[in-house]
Amino acid sequence: MPGSTFGELFRVTNFGESHGPAIGCVIDGCPPGMVLNEAHIQGDLDRRRPGTSRHVTQRNEADAVQILSGVYEGLTTGTPIALLIHNTDQRSKDYGNLLDTFRPGHADYAYWRKYGLRDPRGGGRASARLTAPTVAAGAVARKWLRERFGCSFVGWMTQLGDIAIPFEDEAMIPDNPFFAPNRSVIAELEAYMDALRKAGDSCGARLTVVARGVPPGLGEPLYDRLDADIAHAMMGLNAVKGVEIGAGFGCVTQKGSEHGDELSPEGFRSNHAGGVLGGISTGQDLMVSIAIKPTSSIRLPRASIDRAGQPTVVETHGRHDPCVGIRATPIAEALLALVVMDHVLRHRAQCADVRLPVPPIPGTAG
Amino acid sequence: MPGSTFGELFRVTNFGESHGPAIGCVIDGCPPGMVLNEAHIQGDLDRRRPGTSRHVTQRNEADAVQILSGVYEGLTTGTPIALLIHNTDQRSKDYGNLLDTFRPGHADYAYWRKYGLRDPRGGGRASARLTAPTVAAGAVARKWLRERFGCSFVGWMTQLGDIAIPFEDEAMIPDNPFFAPNRSVIAELEAYMDALRKAGDSCGARLTVVARGVPPGLGEPLYDRLDADIAHAMMGLNAVKGVEIGAGFGCVTQKGSEHGDELSPEGFRSNHAGGVLGGISTGQDLMVSIAIKPTSSIRLPRASIDRAGQPTVVETHGRHDPCVGIRATPIAEALLALVVMDHVLRHRAQCADVRLPVPPIPGTAG
Amino acid sequence: MPGSTFGELFRVTNFGESHGPAIGCVIDGCPPGMVLNEAHIQGDLDRRRPGTSRHVTQRNEADAVQILSGVYEGLTTGTPIALLIHNTDQRSKDYGNLLDTFRPGHADYAYWRKYGLRDPRGGGRASARLTAPTVAAGAVARKWLRERFGCSFVGWMTQLGDIAIPFEDEAMIPDNPFFAPNRSVIAELEAYMDALRKAGDSCGARLTVVARGVPPGLGEPLYDRLDADIAHAMMGLNAVKGVEIGAGFGCVTQKGSEHGDELSPEGFRSNHAGGVLGGISTGQDLMVSIAIKPTSSIRLPRASIDRAGQPTVVETHGRHDPCVGIRATPIAEALLALVVMDHVLRHRAQCADVRLPVPPIPGTAG
Amino acid sequence: MPGSTFGELFRVTNFGESHGPAIGCVIDGCPPGMVLNEAHIQGDLDRRRPGTSRHVTQRNEADAVQILSGVYEGLTTGTPIALLIHNTDQRSKDYGNLLDTFRPGHADYAYWRKYGLRDPRGGGRASARLTAPTVAAGAVARKWLRERFGCSFVGWMTQLGDIAIPFEDEAMIPDNPFFAPNRSVIAELEAYMDALRKAGDSCGARLTVVARGVPPGLGEPLYDRLDADIAHAMMGLNAVKGVEIGAGFGCVTQKGSEHGDELSPEGFRSNHAGGVLGGISTGQDLMVSIAIKPTSSIRLPRASIDRAGQPTVVETHGRHDPCVGIRATPIAEALLALVVMDHVLRHRAQCADVRLPVPPIPGTAG
Repeated sequence: MPGSTFGELFRVTNFGESHGPAIGCVIDGCPPGMVLNEAHIQGDLDRRRPGTSRHVTQRNEADAVQILSGVYEGLTTGTPIALLIHNTDQRSKDYGNLLDTFRPGHADYAYWRKYGLRDPRGGGRASARLTAPTVAAGAVARKWLRERFGCSFVGWMTQLGDIAIPFEDEAMIPDNPFFAPNRSVIAELEAYMDALRKAGDSCGARLTVVARGVPPGLGEPLYDRLDADIAHAMMGLNAVKGVEIGAGFGCVTQKGSEHGDELSPEGFRSNHAGGVLGGISTGQDLMVSIAIKPTSSIRLPRASIDRAGQPTVVETHGRHDPCVGIRATPIAEALLALVVMDHVLRHRAQCADVRLPVPPIPGTAG
Repeated sequence: MPGSTFGELFRVTNFGESHGPAIGCVIDGCPPGMVLNEAHIQGDLDRRRPGTSRHVTQRNEADAVQILSGVYEGLTTGTPIALLIHNTDQRSKDYGNLLDTFRPGHADYAYWRKYGLRDPRGGGRASARLTAPTVAAGAVARKWLRERFGCSFVGWMTQLGDIAIPFEDEAMIPDNPFFAPNRSVIAELEAYMDALRKAGDSCGARLTVVARGVPPGLGEPLYDRLDADIAHAMMGLNAVKGVEIGAGFGCVTQKGSEHGDELSPEGFRSNHAGGVLGGISTGQDLMVSIAIKPTSSIRLPRASIDRAGQPTVVETHGRHDPCVGIRATPIAEALLALVVMDHVLRHRAQCADVRLPVPPIPGTAG
Repeated sequence: MPGSTFGELFRVTNFGESHGPAIGCVIDGCPPGMVLNEAHIQGDLDRRRPGTSRHVTQRNEADAVQILSGVYEGLTTGTPIALLIHNTDQRSKDYGNLLDTFRPGHADYAYWRKYGLRDPRGGGRASARLTAPTVAAGAVARKWLRERFGCSFVGWMTQLGDIAIPFEDEAMIPDNPFFAPNRSVIAELEAYMDALRKAGDSCGARLTVVARGVPPGLGEPLYDRLDADIAHAMMGLNAVKGVEIGAGFGCVTQKGSEHGDELSPEGFRSNHAGGVLGGISTGQDLMVSIAIKPTSSIRLPRASIDRAGQPTVVETHGRHDPCVGIRATPIAEALLALVVMDHVLRHRAQCADVRLPVPPIPGTAG
Repeated sequence: MPGSTFGELFRVTNFGESHGPAIGCVIDGCPPGMVLNEAHIQGDLDRRRPGTSRHVTQRNEADAVQILSGVYEGLTTGTPIALLIHNTDQRSKDYGNLLDTFRPGHADYAYWRKYGLRDPRGGGRASARLTAPTVAAGAVARKWLRERFGCSFVGWMTQLGDIAIPFEDEAMIPDNPFFAPNRSVIAELEAYMDALRKAGDSCGARLTVVARGVPPGLGEPLYDRLDADIAHAMMGLNAVKGVEIGAGFGCVTQKGSEHGDELSPEGFRSNHAGGVLGGISTGQDLMVSIAIKPTSSIRLPRASIDRAGQPTVVETHGRHDPCVGIRATPIAEALLALVVMDHVLRHRAQCADVRLPVPPIPGTAG
């Protein structure tokens, strides 16, 4: 099965390349009757958009989304919602060299081995630009989940390269280009990025994403567990090399008497589980952490080979994010929303008739 | 879509509960013409089997596998291969209390919220026993991949609770019950586990799994990337809370000039990518690391509530692994093999006609 | 994707061969909390069972079903339900000739071309015996649909070879081995079959299947329409060569003013649509008709070739149904139930929140 | 799973409504390296286009297709191919009445029951206009199958209302607006249609579609048989009420000694099977026949009800095909090509290594 579709029941099929005429997606399975127009989607796209600070790529894209189908008189009809975003700032002048050589750490080589050819303009299909349709689809899922269950999704940066970002206040996240929940560290982050750009290098980052108000019961016991599908979504995001749920790798040195979250009539006493037990949501917040590698397209010269196997040196100029993690927060939020949305529909398909005699645990969702 | 099926083209459908009459799986999509009998599968099952040392559960199961279909005169026919493993050592005496209360850190609560009822005997469907059919299916995939491409899969423990296990020699892995690639640390591990059992507590672990000889070109650029599907597989294993590919979380503090693996006519100069670039295999070794949480079923008393929401204390007696990570190595190997197998079939479905004019990079697969 | 799984949300994975140790299936996605035991399934299996009259194969199989998983204390748990049926009357004496030659009209040749080898014992995977697990799964779906919506499924024979069977009374169907809704034609049918057997030949049949009480709204507008999935199910049954919904091929000579079913406050005035409009159920009865070809395994000599391409003559002895249509009625009912069940779950996944302000049309379901 | 995606490995996701801004589809899974531009697709679209004779709807649509992605420098890249067709001749003046009432035989009522609302403009999603993206996707599949295997797909009308159309010469099909393989009957067909239009009524039709050069081995033994997937595709086409493979319903009165196609060293002696045995292609021509019901949107007054359940009378004016069967031939060809394409990829995923020692049967494909 080709891999450009995300989700089983809320299905997002993504298309496009960085420098083609347009990118977009088709959402199939959206529940009918929800109020939806472009403005409901544009906000999340704007948060991911390039060119909004000097620390990200200077490509100038409005990322204006157009709804082509699936909405009638302002309401979703239940039929496929096609979303289109035109590419407006392609500069595909000279890719001759890129076509023949392989950037270390880039998808160039792997694509060539898979398909025997590739679209090299701006990274083609491997460009982070292709996360825009994901964000757009995520906005639709987020709206439905918010209205139906009161779910919310928020992410922030917890580390940029060598700099840890202590959590201070969620309200500060929108106030800086790093999605940092901390005002005092911003100057340091800016200086770090300025030096990095000057050096022609790139750096990694670590993000946390949280989903609140997620109903319990989502996820399948085996294989398609909720945490497994979250890991699939997050590791499927460009440049991600690690995913944690709840305590994550910290659980290795925990004892069972510490890790297992105790329950009381007032609610769970901790959330090492990150909101998932046995692959199924508990109603606690979903807590996810991801590692994002440094961008491979850098100005510094790197050793490589060409398509004939001969040694060469690669320097990548042009417009690139020196840290793709900076714009990744809204993407990770969108991915988490898409997973939750899909499992909400999967869960009610099978278990819509389940009725429990008691109220939920305090401090948890539904 | 219900979640008990793994893979798209090499599909494994898992069934059973810990204390039901039998567990097993159906493999659909296995290529025809491969020599296969029970002995080819039993070896991997024996490596995962309970009761093989004092550090794992003392449940006594032969885990003898039976092939019910899909093999004729010793060859796979291309039709579904059903594998059956009888449960022989169930002791389902008294689960009355477990049915009414929720073990902290256990799937009990989540299952109850999802289904409104659950099989509490030995953890029911949430038992790690259900990884046996996965291991059996993985053995079939491993055999085919070995014969067709020379692939091999090997895993080992890198940390047990507080004790890091330095990599010394792969040949030592089969010689100890921990799958540790290091002989000198075994005594320390045994003492650690003995103390843990005595204390009635449990601990976490960290494993590494490697796939060698994996052809380049496997994986889809978006969403169903090879690394995404590996993360899905690993996070879908009971008790896993974190997954890393290649450098993993270490990439956060790497610079692009360090992380991106340089190429030379002699091959890749490093493998921070862990064998995957842009979601597609490069032919380098696949490198995966996972974090496994401490078992939730422990003797130490923990605060919880019952189904009526009233406070209670839970102590779990009976037979449990004090560290589920100990037996997880063959399972993680099997999961990695299943992902690779599935993507081999997916890749050749679309790209069987791709021919490249040059030989592969030295030191990489096919 | 391998093809042995039926349905998207109520998923049935079928395994086994005619002369292997056992056949069966795994049902994934069954709603939890339904009372279920073997007796609820055995009844439908007995209706399909061989050896119940002289007009069907004399193979003696009890077709006793065993539930291996997914049921706890008599209730479905929501986890996979594995069903096992042992083969007890295999007689795989001499298939040497069959392995080398191809019966005209049989799957022999096609299997060989696909897989390069095949299990020739009793038709292997191509045997109609593999419909037993489908019938078993269908019994589970029928029970849930009956209890939840009051659905019922009934089929009957409308033609046997040259003999049309006028519909007289549904109550007569269980009283004869042909599932004929007509008592007066039975003697003629028996004589026809006796002559056919004596001649060593076989004949075709035509069946009708009806589903009553099916809620409106089931089915997807494009591609996975309810009628499309019914056609897939029915044409997927061994030996079926034609499928009709409602007026079927009769619609070719109808005018629009005749075919379109008028509505009135008292309900629909006709059912040329067969219960489906625009791919979606209307609440009227689903009406399906199928054509079943004559069995290919006959005693009469037929020209064929062997695996080397040399001419040969094939005569098939052994135990075979001279008209597979005779035992097909419970299978067609089961398939229709499985399609409806799957679409009920699919529909409520997306549209569970749809509320309409008015009562349904009289004479239709829900 | 929502239903707007067709195929497992060559996946077509369809979007749009009759009077929205655009319709289209995304093809995922197309093999890389094929020459492709809009002109390769436009030809088939033009054959399906409205307004090409007085016997079809007078809506004026160029159906000009645009490739948005998946092609670089004239070659398919293996990534999703998005195809866009703008709607240019919408006339959505007054649908107030249609929104409140249900046309007999139309999807109006079923959509309303499913979604609680619907786009009534020109039939919305239920419009036959949505077959255009299917035809476009089919053109891509046809091109690949022709170049790779020499496959061809051709369909024709065999009956229009009461008039049977004897097969005379395939070369005549493009010469008339009915896709009739017979020149002498055209005048009669035209007079029939003129009278029908004058009467404000509509009529049904019967088509045959043939695929030639289809390799043997395509299709899965159970459930997803090739014939089952063909039936799914055809019954999923608007207005189809019946599907036959090979002898179809004619098999009911055939004896086994007549129906089973004999083989000789010179090839098969007949093709009652229609190219499929045991669900798997034999290499003979695939032969499919379909019944298309008369259009439900007619000028003649019909009894119906409104959304409040009150009686009303419906007369449908505007632009409609009096026989949707007339333009259905290229659609049926496209659907057959899509099924074959999908199964070619499915087959080689599993069985790419199968090698047979002997040449194929004369007169059959590969």
